[in-house]
Amino acid sequence: MDEFELISRYFSNCGAKRHDTGIGVGDDAAVLQVRDGCDLVITTDTMVAGTHFFPDADPRALGHKLVAVNVSDIAAMGAEPAWLSLAITLPSIDEAWLSAFAAGLHETAEYYNCQLVGGDTTRGPMSLTMVAKGIVPRGKAITRSGAKVGDYIYVTGTLGDAALGLKLCQGLHEVSKKHQTHILQRFHFPSARVALGQALRNIASSAMDLSDGLYSDIQHILKRSGVGASIDVSRLPLSQAVKDSCDNATAMQLALSGGEDYELLFTVPEAKRGSLDVLLSPYGIAITCIGRITGVAGKLELKQAEQPFNYVHSGFIHF
Amino acid sequence: MDEFELISRYFSNCGAKRHDTGIGVGDDAAVLQVRDGCDLVITTDTMVAGTHFFPDADPRALGHKLVAVNVSDIAAMGAEPAWLSLAITLPSIDEAWLSAFAAGLHETAEYYNCQLVGGDTTRGPMSLTMVAKGIVPRGKAITRSGAKVGDYIYVTGTLGDAALGLKLCQGLHEVSKKHQTHILQRFHFPSARVALGQALRNIASSAMDLSDGLYSDIQHILKRSGVGASIDVSRLPLSQAVKDSCDNATAMQLALSGGEDYELLFTVPEAKRGSLDVLLSPYGIAITCIGRITGVAGKLELKQAEQPFNYVHSGFIHF
Repeated sequence: MDEFELISRYFSNCGAKRHDTGIGVGDDAAVLQVRDGCDLVITTDTMVAGTHFFPDADPRALGHKLVAVNVSDIAAMGAEPAWLSLAITLPSIDEAWLSAFAAGLHETAEYYNCQLVGGDTTRGPMSLTMVAKGIVPRGKAITRSGAKVGDYIYVTGTLGDAALGLKLCQGLHEVSKKHQTHILQRFHFPSARVALGQALRNIASSAMDLSDGLYSDIQHILKRSGVGASIDVSRLPLSQAVKDSCDNATAMQLALSGGEDYELLFTVPEAKRGSLDVLLSPYGIAITCIGRITGVAGKLELKQAEQPFNYVHSGFIHF
Repeated sequence: MDEFELISRYFSNCGAKRHDTGIGVGDDAAVLQVRDGCDLVITTDTMVAGTHFFPDADPRALGHKLVAVNVSDIAAMGAEPAWLSLAITLPSIDEAWLSAFAAGLHETAEYYNCQLVGGDTTRGPMSLTMVAKGIVPRGKAITRSGAKVGDYIYVTGTLGDAALGLKLCQGLHEVSKKHQTHILQRFHFPSARVALGQALRNIASSAMDLSDGLYSDIQHILKRSGVGASIDVSRLPLSQAVKDSCDNATAMQLALSGGEDYELLFTVPEAKRGSLDVLLSPYGIAITCIGRITGVAGKLELKQAEQPFNYVHSGFIHF
């Protein structure tokens, strides 16, 4: 099987079929009909075997995760995901693996209404790079740089589940039978908060998705916005699974420094806070206010019941 | 140095500064202001150490080539290159390497008026994936699927130079001193035919860039257009360097099956052929008519002085 047969067999009808795809897989480049009055939003994520996933990881879950983590970045900008490209590097052709990987990719791309429109296939150590493209009304993208002093800080869903799932897979933490499915689902099959992200367009002053953990991720908003933050750790939303499986210190470690939750972190000005619960209730995802933006540029204060909360962060190091 | 320092030091002000970049490096995603009435054109190329380049290759040349080969795909669509993303996977941080690579990337991106707007940096076996984005007036992209029976087949520049350069680097072929600079330049620092590609928008019925060699690349046009081709090998444009360094059989092998020339292959209807030389002369790149499109779908005929030309193709196998 050469490169072109491989693409045609596994990747030529992948994801949703969109009417605004001018040309998809098979030409020198894809042609995308970005709507007039819209900006294009584009993000890239690479997953390398041995660094980001176990070499024997379930290929269907990998396909899912690759799409979801990319779409999550699009969601965090308040944009509508639309198109995906895939650069896949494989040491050899394993048809069973490719078939399962492509199935995971297809079903997740279709779920988010994204079409795979191109990419590259090469030989080498296994590595997966996805590029997700979305559209947003011109000037309406939610960035990391708009947080203002006094804004309220929110997160969606619950924190630390994916990190607990990773520990469970590594045999480093026990989780009771009844919670295992939920925790593994959160780790292997993360959800991107797409509809909610779009609903935040005219509400949030800043937003990002949580991939490396709240403690390190929020620093990007503080840096880009030139502000500080005060977070009440007793308000961090924890799933029943994390509460039942961990002592308090471990739960805090997971919620603050655990990665891969792909929940949204966002800030809301006081004036827009009143209608927030009502506006976001249709999306079925809990939102929790965990603190406020302060004027101490770059400083993250953690509190618990109005007292300083001592915390030693140990996060994921990219290099 | 962590990921964020690395990005900030080497990749945060890379390439041209474009006014239509809403948000570049540093947020969840880049925001690109695609002009109203334009389509977005997007392509992806991966270069893996050991597969696509020697691990000890000059990093500045690598940076150049990565940009040029991606921009070449944008040029082949008749589009204007605008933005680049880079997913770079490195086994460790080598500051001298990174500095030279980023310099090559920057100078070439700036030359093509492209801005680096994002990407990902990860740890693992060395691999470079670039995504180039361009814009083209809506519906004006030149595809591989528009060739019609009777159209004339053209190529830009000369063929086989890059393949001779590779052989020279590998010590497999001798080239006289006076031609070495030219041949090595063509291999290490390919040019994308950007202005000429855009000039072809209302002229060419199909186009693509030559990355794997004429013999295998033209099959994509034949397949997507449902046509055949007849090529007169005596018309293939050869540089003085190839003519002086190779016997006829070797020159044909280089011109037909050698890759990485990044010249454009395009077809032109008879009605638009008259003004072709005049219209394209300002671009300073020779164009040569090498044959015609035929009605025998999928069949490539090679001729020399009206006689069948026997040829055994051996091209680059991707897997």
